[in-house]
Amino acid sequence: MKIAVIGSVAAGTSAAAKARRNTESAEIAIFEKGVDISYSACGIPYYVSDMVTDRKQLIPRDANFFKERYNIDVLIGHEVLKIFPDDKQLEVENLVTRQIFKHHYDLLVIATGASPFVPPIKGADAPNVFPIRTVESGDKLKMFIKRSKPAHGVIIGSGFIGMEMAESLVHLGIKTVIVEKAAQVVPSLDPDVATWVERHLQENGVELFLADGLAALETNESGVYGVVTESGKRIRADFVIMAIGVKPNVALAKAAGIAIGETGAIKVDKYLESSIKGIYAAGDCAESFSRITGRPVYYPQGSTANKMGRIVGQNITGAREEFQGGLGTRIFKVFDLAVGQTGLTENEAKRLGYEVATVHNIKPNQQPYYPGGSKLLIKAVADRQTGKMLGAQVVGSHGVDKRVDVFATGISLGIKANEWFQIDLGYAPPYSTTKDPVTYTGMILTNEIEKETHLISPDELEQRREDGRPLTIIDVRPPEEYTTGHVTGAINIPLANLRQRIGGLDPDVDTVTYCNAGTSGNASQNILLNHGFKSVFNISGGYQNWKMRPSSKQTVVMV
Amino acid sequence: MKIAVIGSVAAGTSAAAKARRNTESAEIAIFEKGVDISYSACGIPYYVSDMVTDRKQLIPRDANFFKERYNIDVLIGHEVLKIFPDDKQLEVENLVTRQIFKHHYDLLVIATGASPFVPPIKGADAPNVFPIRTVESGDKLKMFIKRSKPAHGVIIGSGFIGMEMAESLVHLGIKTVIVEKAAQVVPSLDPDVATWVERHLQENGVELFLADGLAALETNESGVYGVVTESGKRIRADFVIMAIGVKPNVALAKAAGIAIGETGAIKVDKYLESSIKGIYAAGDCAESFSRITGRPVYYPQGSTANKMGRIVGQNITGAREEFQGGLGTRIFKVFDLAVGQTGLTENEAKRLGYEVATVHNIKPNQQPYYPGGSKLLIKAVADRQTGKMLGAQVVGSHGVDKRVDVFATGISLGIKANEWFQIDLGYAPPYSTTKDPVTYTGMILTNEIEKETHLISPDELEQRREDGRPLTIIDVRPPEEYTTGHVTGAINIPLANLRQRIGGLDPDVDTVTYCNAGTSGNASQNILLNHGFKSVFNISGGYQNWKMRPSSKQTVVMV
Repeated sequence: MKIAVIGSVAAGTSAAAKARRNTESAEIAIFEKGVDISYSACGIPYYVSDMVTDRKQLIPRDANFFKERYNIDVLIGHEVLKIFPDDKQLEVENLVTRQIFKHHYDLLVIATGASPFVPPIKGADAPNVFPIRTVESGDKLKMFIKRSKPAHGVIIGSGFIGMEMAESLVHLGIKTVIVEKAAQVVPSLDPDVATWVERHLQENGVELFLADGLAALETNESGVYGVVTESGKRIRADFVIMAIGVKPNVALAKAAGIAIGETGAIKVDKYLESSIKGIYAAGDCAESFSRITGRPVYYPQGSTANKMGRIVGQNITGAREEFQGGLGTRIFKVFDLAVGQTGLTENEAKRLGYEVATVHNIKPNQQPYYPGGSKLLIKAVADRQTGKMLGAQVVGSHGVDKRVDVFATGISLGIKANEWFQIDLGYAPPYSTTKDPVTYTGMILTNEIEKETHLISPDELEQRREDGRPLTIIDVRPPEEYTTGHVTGAINIPLANLRQRIGGLDPDVDTVTYCNAGTSGNASQNILLNHGFKSVFNISGGYQNWKMRPSSKQTVVMV
Repeated sequence: MKIAVIGSVAAGTSAAAKARRNTESAEIAIFEKGVDISYSACGIPYYVSDMVTDRKQLIPRDANFFKERYNIDVLIGHEVLKIFPDDKQLEVENLVTRQIFKHHYDLLVIATGASPFVPPIKGADAPNVFPIRTVESGDKLKMFIKRSKPAHGVIIGSGFIGMEMAESLVHLGIKTVIVEKAAQVVPSLDPDVATWVERHLQENGVELFLADGLAALETNESGVYGVVTESGKRIRADFVIMAIGVKPNVALAKAAGIAIGETGAIKVDKYLESSIKGIYAAGDCAESFSRITGRPVYYPQGSTANKMGRIVGQNITGAREEFQGGLGTRIFKVFDLAVGQTGLTENEAKRLGYEVATVHNIKPNQQPYYPGGSKLLIKAVADRQTGKMLGAQVVGSHGVDKRVDVFATGISLGIKANEWFQIDLGYAPPYSTTKDPVTYTGMILTNEIEKETHLISPDELEQRREDGRPLTIIDVRPPEEYTTGHVTGAINIPLANLRQRIGGLDPDVDTVTYCNAGTSGNASQNILLNHGFKSVFNISGGYQNWKMRPSSKQTVVMV
């Protein structure tokens, strides 16, 4: 049996290696139009910043490795020009000799990956405009920075690669500006989580132009020297990084009559077989599925590509393994912050029609007395109807990756918000608090779903205020904290005095309680509800979260 | 309604606080014979080592806090002498005034905790023998070290507190010896995991006496000056720390006719109600349940105590909440190593009659090119019959807590070994590898359970050798690695040459393959099996794990 694979990064090599582990008898060939195979694209920001100095560390394997270990032929510098599904043939060009030949296959795997999206504007092809994707693209940028010693860099787009590149540029001493069309950075996050990232970027000297996309590039004979935004702002640019996103490489598949899905990537079934029998697709060129909704989604990530590749490897050697889909779990580091997400955001969940319960939980990531800890923000979303967890977003300096993966595991297995409390997570002072922040998150969500102790988000509170609805807002912190700063219009009744002063409050007026992060606010809420108050809300995430509300973001653009 | 709680550490205060959150109408009193309440016993090693300098950090809350926030009366210095279940009364002594009085309750919560086990031998009560439990016991040791500047400390027992205390003593410049009756440190771990901890202790200058319990203490007028082991060794001791374990404080309950369970702790049902209706028990004095087997177990841990306390708080205010049991999840830090476990060890699982599949997975905790990473050892155990995960033990410098909690979440939700591969964990170079070590663990276990690609543990291999069974052992690493050191009797056929040299091997003889950590060994195993070899084993964890096998432990005692 002859297996042909087009593309040799994560999905293609995973599929081929898995196939070989299952059988010694197949002939397996991988066609790669580039030179580098099986590389770690995620390492490129660290390669550019010289944290990773040896290029080979990003490309630990070569064609020889695959031949020796797996008896797989990797043909680098070979571009597949056309697929002939009826004849089960590929038309392949050797890019060195320019020779074109036919290659027969019994089973075909398309793993052509994705390409960075570059807007079709003048100057986008200038030599100092860098879309980031392959190790070669990292080489070019690294070389440019070493030679030209640029002072000003502009990053178009603020997704994960944009964030990592911002850190790299600042480490290299380059004044860095981010231009983002959306009103927030990292558009895959909810806006009230993104504000935490924005503040951190600004604290580290990155300038943000939000809600203001790229309109034009200013060029002269040596390339781009300026960026013009849609609102007309002009930004100095010694070079530009295009980090707007990627688009799946589907031209080859499309030309062969293979169906493209609603996401723009190659449509596949649960076995990752395309619309043409015997032709499979995996990785960034193919559609994935949401494990939560079952719907097609596009998750162009190395971790997903590896999974899909392996499943294809199984299915082309006789298995019938289903891909159960992903949660879009993602994490990145930007300066001292780790930012991760898994499952649905509040916005996504609402768009999909869920009746959502959300919580903002701000907690220390470990025992506060053990040195080196910091606080975490967890925003979690659950489905009020079923109680099931839908997603979580986590931001902080330490312990973010742990909480994201714990949430991802629970959500994958269908956990309900009220089940977290009974999960036996590990506790020791350097690693957690006796009740882990994940446990607390589950507890607060459970209260929100099952009890009358409702949360109100800072922006919901501000909306109510604008609507002119009568509201008693009680700051239950000690007077010295209240004096330093408090929610507009709040009165101060410290929790310790609340029971005595309860007679002076009107139980029929909607009441909002808050403390610094939410715990004392919740205790106060319980007291008021237990004393017959009709409707009491606790501010989700407390004063710390209110201060960070997106509607307060007038200061974000620091030109 | 009057609620009385005996004991004010984790479980007692959790129960009381939860009860108050549910109702404002109950009268709630906590009786505490000591002075410190709601303290973090887990912080004591760090308090002794002066990493935590302020005693108050371990005791963030006092009686006043509970009165103000929860309207709960905490009576410190009040010892409950007797429970009269028929009259629903307590006999209480005010330890300051020596006044004895009766206190009526409608519902009672016993949260009397546990005490360190101190063997009944001469000298055990000397002033320089320190059982560690309360903050006061930490004060005493800390004061003794400051005043006496001891040079030699001996720790009896090597559980989690023993490990943490060893690190603290070494940090204080004290020559530290551990005496342990079992043949390994941390008896809750499997022996082949404990060896990793033993090496690390020795590398940090801790001397170990294993398989050699405490026989006697040598004393003079100023206290203990030496420890004698069961094998007759004498060890200099300027002071002794008793860290043998804890026993539940059940005398009060027993005297009241409350049933004690098979574990020696107070027997409770799923609602944490004791054998006497209206009397609940929670925390270190009470039995817990294994979430895996449903059987009673004894898990004296703060995290479990908090959970049990909260469930009791619910159930004494009208709820019927079931405690779903724990996994005995534990983690500790010792020098640069984190050591964690969740669920059953191989030994426990075998004792309980499971037909187990085990794997030793040695992997980098993050992308090797990203600075600061290290390798992890994961030993995981699954049930061959059902495929379900039973437990995991994880050792390493970074990322241990994450993997333990991910395993704990999966195991709590009944995950099967073959489901891990499809869990969408977060990937970025600073946090993980594209396939996380947990994912790999699941994949290897799945191969072990579902396929012919069996693993053999280093000690199983040595057993086979002793039994004289014919065996071809193939080291598939490059010659330069083989030359540096290899498994006794192994021949060297690098993986790259295996296909060519396969004709020279006898497919009917049992064959063992291995590489450094297991991956190439598995690739070789696949090749041999696919070429018709009858029985091929891959060494679990490879050469790195073989070097650490418990049967090679002659060097552990470094007197």
